[in-house]
Amino acid sequence: MTRAGRVVNGLALAAVLASSSAVVYADNQDVIDYRQHIMKTLGEQAASIGMILQQKAPADNFATHVKIIAVTAATAKKAFEPKVLGGDAKPDVWNNWADFSKKMDNFVAATDDLAKAAASGGLAAAQPKVQGAMQCKGCHDTYRVPKK
Amino acid sequence: MTRAGRVVNGLALAAVLASSSAVVYADNQDVIDYRQHIMKTLGEQAASIGMILQQKAPADNFATHVKIIAVTAATAKKAFEPKVLGGDAKPDVWNNWADFSKKMDNFVAATDDLAKAAASGGLAAAQPKVQGAMQCKGCHDTYRVPKK
Repeated sequence: MTRAGRVVNGLALAAVLASSSAVVYADNQDVIDYRQHIMKTLGEQAASIGMILQQKAPADNFATHVKIIAVTAATAKKAFEPKVLGGDAKPDVWNNWADFSKKMDNFVAATDDLAKAAASGGLAAAQPKVQGAMQCKGCHDTYRVPKK
Repeated sequence: MTRAGRVVNGLALAAVLASSSAVVYADNQDVIDYRQHIMKTLGEQAASIGMILQQKAPADNFATHVKIIAVTAATAKKAFEPKVLGGDAKPDVWNNWADFSKKMDNFVAATDDLAKAAASGGLAAAQPKVQGAMQCKGCHDTYRVPKK
């Protein structure tokens, strides 16, 4: 769809939905863009945590970064709910939704537990939980199109 | 510095600092990488909020996104404290540190206020505060190297 087409489509849809409380998506590219903003946030924050664990960044922010991961994780499943293929998502996200959804729920629960450990006990308490909570690769290997 | 040089430098610095509680940075590129992870997180979350305000993404996550912005904002100043030129930061970040630092503090306070409004009153209560809290452009125009 052209940019102009997207804008028109967005306005039309917005008009249709203006009086409802339904979830509003302007078009498929918006669905993809939105979930990519969330996944990129997780990527940037995971990288920050990785740098701290490698002593390449100050540990002072560790508990905050894991909190951001936990809070962001809770927004991710909703972003994948619309079945819109494209971006870096494999079709298996929706073909195997029960498994994908369960993995997302586990990620939310595990990062929440990690954030609580970091908030109460700092890096020392949380570090042993990081690998278990941040199973990025396992899920990406199954559900993300490999990076070129 | 070569990649190998960076690793060696990192190990040497880590060894020097292993017995101290000082902030550990492996090298200048790490300092730049770390602050970019944080600023990119803010960018992705600001984009998410923008999409919601344009009704291109579901409003359900609005309060969560502004919370992520607020929590992330609180990590940003520390990431700029080491005076390491490069990346997208203009030298004025450190030449005018008092102003930059004050703008960062204002950003933290305003996004915290925004997050509280969103948590208690949702999108309707928070929306009028978004523009005042998210003064991204004002600060970027002064302190960020323009995008090519």
